[in-house]
Amino acid sequence: MEHSDAVRMLDVALAEAEAGRAEGGIPIGAALFGADGRLLGRGRNRRVQDDDASMHAETSAFRAAGRQRGYRGTTMVTTLSPCWYCSGLVRQFGISRLVVGESRTFTGQHEWLAEAGVEVVLLDDARCYELMKGFIAANPGLWNEDIGVD
Amino acid sequence: MEHSDAVRMLDVALAEAEAGRAEGGIPIGAALFGADGRLLGRGRNRRVQDDDASMHAETSAFRAAGRQRGYRGTTMVTTLSPCWYCSGLVRQFGISRLVVGESRTFTGQHEWLAEAGVEVVLLDDARCYELMKGFIAANPGLWNEDIGVD
Repeated sequence: MEHSDAVRMLDVALAEAEAGRAEGGIPIGAALFGADGRLLGRGRNRRVQDDDASMHAETSAFRAAGRQRGYRGTTMVTTLSPCWYCSGLVRQFGISRLVVGESRTFTGQHEWLAEAGVEVVLLDDARCYELMKGFIAANPGLWNEDIGVD
Repeated sequence: MEHSDAVRMLDVALAEAEAGRAEGGIPIGAALFGADGRLLGRGRNRRVQDDDASMHAETSAFRAAGRQRGYRGTTMVTTLSPCWYCSGLVRQFGISRLVVGESRTFTGQHEWLAEAGVEVVLLDDARCYELMKGFIAANPGLWNEDIGVD
């Protein structure tokens, strides 16, 4: 994919992450785009806002996209490298492409997804990195809760 | 774990699955139990009922359990072998044990979870098998939608 297309998609996810920060939530955002580039759904981590442990950014965007007959050609974009839960989502539903804002503050299983046929695009976006770095430093307990670290 | 304890837990998940069938939904149920055996949350697939693609039985039970500080010692019980999405949930959050009602109609990644340190108990329960077999035969399109098969 074109770098500019990936950044355009990431900007939607980043806007979700920033809205989450403004709400006092965990600042991770995501969006799902169709094969034609149309936005299908967008969302953000909702652990704090809704007391909902199941709504990571990616699952939130997936949910917002509603029921789909299939996911061939779709792109999931997320501000942060996905955890196993969200990587499993991408793999199970056959989402074709994953655009990752940054993977420095948390590094998921990009190779595992690539081996399963998912195209992984890593942007290493400084805005995403600074947003997450600041959040983790200020809220280590909340961050550990969100990724299941005791 | 004792076989009778596993069956007692499965009965909770099966009641959820049967409630889902009665609602016209996909008849898969799950429950999350604490290290002390206490029920933390129970749920069922909600694709049809809520038009919610993100709510598999396991994610629904996980959500119902609310925010937890950790999952060490917990048991996820599900009427049907988990897909990648739900297997990723179990692995990411460090759920200690997985009790599977049956894995004949759908076979998930038990070995992948076991290698990650999850204790997997497979019951091969005839009630779960018959329930799912009948559903898939009657609703192949809906079932494929739920597991991301085109």
